[in-house]
Parts: sequence; structure tokens; C-alpha cells
Amino acid sequence: MYTEMTPNGYGISIKKGKVLYSGKSDYQELEIFESEGLGRVFTLDGLMMTTEKDEFFYHELIVHIPMITHKNPENVLVIGGGDGGTIREVLKHRSVKNVDLCEIDGLVIDVCKKYLPTISCKLDDPKVKIYVEDAIEFIKNKKNVYDVVLIDSTDPMGPGEGLFTEEFYNNVKVSLKEGGIVVPQSESPFGQKESFEKVYKLLRKVFKNVAPYCSPVITYPSGYWSWAFCSDEVEAPSFDTKLNEEIASEIEKQCKIYNSKLHKAVFAVPNFVRELSK
Amino acid sequence: MYTEMTPNGYGISIKKGKVLYSGKSDYQELEIFESEGLGRVFTLDGLMMTTEKDEFFYHELIVHIPMITHKNPENVLVIGGGDGGTIREVLKHRSVKNVDLCEIDGLVIDVCKKYLPTISCKLDDPKVKIYVEDAIEFIKNKKNVYDVVLIDSTDPMGPGEGLFTEEFYNNVKVSLKEGGIVVPQSESPFGQKESFEKVYKLLRKVFKNVAPYCSPVITYPSGYWSWAFCSDEVEAPSFDTKLNEEIASEIEKQCKIYNSKLHKAVFAVPNFVRELSK
Repeated sequence: MYTEMTPNGYGISIKKGKVLYSGKSDYQELEIFESEGLGRVFTLDGLMMTTEKDEFFYHELIVHIPMITHKNPENVLVIGGGDGGTIREVLKHRSVKNVDLCEIDGLVIDVCKKYLPTISCKLDDPKVKIYVEDAIEFIKNKKNVYDVVLIDSTDPMGPGEGLFTEEFYNNVKVSLKEGGIVVPQSESPFGQKESFEKVYKLLRKVFKNVAPYCSPVITYPSGYWSWAFCSDEVEAPSFDTKLNEEIASEIEKQCKIYNSKLHKAVFAVPNFVRELSK
Repeated sequence: MYTEMTPNGYGISIKKGKVLYSGKSDYQELEIFESEGLGRVFTLDGLMMTTEKDEFFYHELIVHIPMITHKNPENVLVIGGGDGGTIREVLKHRSVKNVDLCEIDGLVIDVCKKYLPTISCKLDDPKVKIYVEDAIEFIKNKKNVYDVVLIDSTDPMGPGEGLFTEEFYNNVKVSLKEGGIVVPQSESPFGQKESFEKVYKLLRKVFKNVAPYCSPVITYPSGYWSWAFCSDEVEAPSFDTKLNEEIASEIEKQCKIYNSKLHKAVFAVPNFVRELSK
């Protein structure tokens, strides 16, 4: 049995099938195991990264909300996300000319390519450039380069820790072109309240417009997840926002969750989430 | 450790503290135990019913969506829901003159009154009439009586099974006044796909307007839950629906989740939920 507990003494349990891979990189321990209901499961240091059966919640939402809100995203940066799920969704957008993937741990990419083909399937696409580097250094040299930056990181501990600082986000901001949008995963507003609150306090120091959006992600701590829409020039979507319906409808056809109504609905967050993210 | 698995081999685990109550009624086994992160936990036949810390997701959503969509709900029926959480939320509405609670298992009411005071706190309100009866029989004699009927049942097995039939819903429909709304809990669209699909097939046979709405409920199977908005005369809310903003705002002040934007947003469901509920 695999169990990941939140600090509050509850969490998800999964009946563990065959272990397909178990190994250690310079940064962390990796494991891929089979399960009946969630397909293959990928963990880092024992913490849930993704599963074949519920990965679409996370990957569709981190990608299509900023990508469709932006008018014409051509150049995209994905930080973390070595499993390739975020890249796969980004490449559904025909406007995209280039995606940089900056993943600190090359072993994550290798293992996911081998064992999670439905997730990593687009990592070899010619539009993708892979940098096995520390994003904290990588981002320092980038000025006025990206339309959309997606921060598909682990929790703020271990290798992901440095991605939750003001300096890092200031550099991310400088890397944006005019009208650029940044979306980091922003923890669970229920299962990781303190960490969620900290992330928003930090983001509000750096960006003019910051708005949480939420969705279930079945296998993440407490099953309820969030992302932060951040931009200086672009406002977060609301019910009245006019989306490019043609593009939204093209993407919707390729998705299990995403549709243009959901695009606006995810920003209508519960009262307690609004309070915690102030 | 308490663990509730979905049929697919994953589920929630909770570190079990002190068991406060354990007993058996004519219908089922009841247990109340303490936990660090979720407060007191209430199970029936080992299945999660509610916890002190996440009950608000379920109770606010089963109640305020139909109650605020209805123009003037005065007479309300709650089926199941012996823990009292649904009753507590119904009584936040000043329009309400009477609430009938029809719960088959009197022991559920007694145990929740004793051990879950924050949930059961309004069961003794003078507006509440409690019927310890089988709802299948209770509803047969009711014609043109209720404005809103809330079906706060267990899964379609054990004592809850008879609440998932066409005959039962036909009787519920007859019990409604003009403009009446029915909302049953409708299982998890992710963790209980088959059961979710069946419920919607059944409801669409009986009611003209049937729409799923979804939210996380942290401790329910897969953590992602649904309810069905059912009515012959009233349409399910959409972004354009004009709500009574004065009432919505009054209720919002008393809630952890509910607000008038969320009221509309919960109906913007993922593509796979739309498909499964057709």
C-alpha cells in the first residue's frame, strides 16, 4: 500500500501493484508503480507527482487557462514538469513556435519517457528544447522572451524550494514579454493552508494581478488543488471575459476537462480560498 | 488507521484517534472517532459520512444552490441527513417556515446530537419536524407540499438503495409544489463513474431539467463529488441567471464556500462529467 499523508494526518492510499522503476538521482528518489484504478503512479521522495488516470486535471488546467487567456502565445517556458504532461498540453496550441522545458533532474525525464508514454509523448517534438538545469539560474539570463511561463514544480521543499522566493519571481517577471502570463501551481488551499497562504503573499509582492483558480486533482494532498494566474497587464478571467471561442473550442475537443465555461468558472473560488489568498 | 477504498483500489486514509462511539442499529454500524486534521469523523458500515472539518463543502452545496435558485422556499423536505448538517444550512434561509427531516435510522440522529454538536446543532429548532421513517413510504402520501426536496442519502447500497428508483423519484416529483426543486447527492463522477451514470439516466426519466453540479468534498470517494439539480419548471443556473443577490449575499456571510459566483460556476462541469451525465 502506498500512502501519502498531509501534515494533518489524512491522505490518499493506493493499492500498490508491480514496481516498474525505483532509483535515485542527485536530487531525489524516483518510483513508478502500477495500480488498478489510477494506472501507473509516479512519486518523488515518496510524494505523489502524477498518475496516468488523473493527470489530465492538473495538466489541462495549468496550461489551457493561461494559454487561451493570452492572445497569441508563441514562446512558452515550462519550469519543472519533466514528466512532459504540461508540454503535451502546450503543444495543442497551434500558435506555439517554441517551448523551453527547464527541469533540474534529467533522470525524471528519462524515466517518464520510458514508463509514462501517454504523459511524456511530446517531449521529443521539434518545437521543444530541453534544458536540464536549475531554473533559478536559467531564468536569470532571460529578458523579454516568453509569452507564458508555467511553473510545474514540486512542493516548496527539496529541489523545488528555491522556486518559492521573491527573487525567483522577479526574474520570471523580467523574462516575460508584454502581456505575458505566469502560472505556478500554488498548493492545496485545504490540505496545505499555510503553504498556500505563503505563495499568494509572495506572488502579490511581484505581480499586479494575482488570482487563484482551483480544481480537484484526485491524487494530490486533500484532492483539492490550486494554481495562480499572475500578470501585470492581463486580468484574470471572469464570467464576462471574452475568450477566443474558436481556439477554446478547438482545445476543448482535445480535452477531458477543459471547456470555455470551465475556463471562467474555476476563478469563482470558495470564500475560504478567497480569504487565504488575499 | 481508517481507510475507505473506492472499488478501484485507492481511497482516503485517516489516522484514527480515540473512538467516541461504536454501535449498531437495525440498519447499520455507526462509528464516531477523533482525528487530528479532520476533527470528529462519522462512518456508517465503515463508509465515510462526514467529518467536522470538511462537512461544509457538502452541506453548503446541497442546500444553498436549490434554496437560492428557488424564489421563496418555505416548506422543505430533507431525506436522510440525520447528522443535521443539511438542516442547519436550510435554516439559514429566513423564508423557511417548516423543514421535515425523514431519516430511517433514529440512532444516527441520537449519536450525531451527542457527538457532532457543530453539525447537528439545529435539529431541535422549532421549525424542524423529525420523522424516523422509511422515506420510500413517507413520500407516498405527499402531494403538492414541498418547495425544495434535498436527498442527503448514502450510496445506492444498504438502507439507501431504495432511494435510487424511478418509483421513488416519481413520488418525490408529486410531492413538489409548482416551481419545486429536488437535489439528490449524485455520487462521484470520478471515483464512482458507473453509479454516477446510472443516477443521471434515472433522473432524466423523471424530470425535465436535470443538471449536475460538482465540488470537492475532501473525504468522499476520490474527493470529487456531485449533486443533481432537478426540476420540471425551474432551469439550472448558468452564468446569465439572475439570482436574488440580497439573499445570496446574506447567506454568503454565513458560509465558508458559498457565494453568488460559485453558485453559477459549479454548473460549469468538466467535459467528462457532461458526457457521463447525458
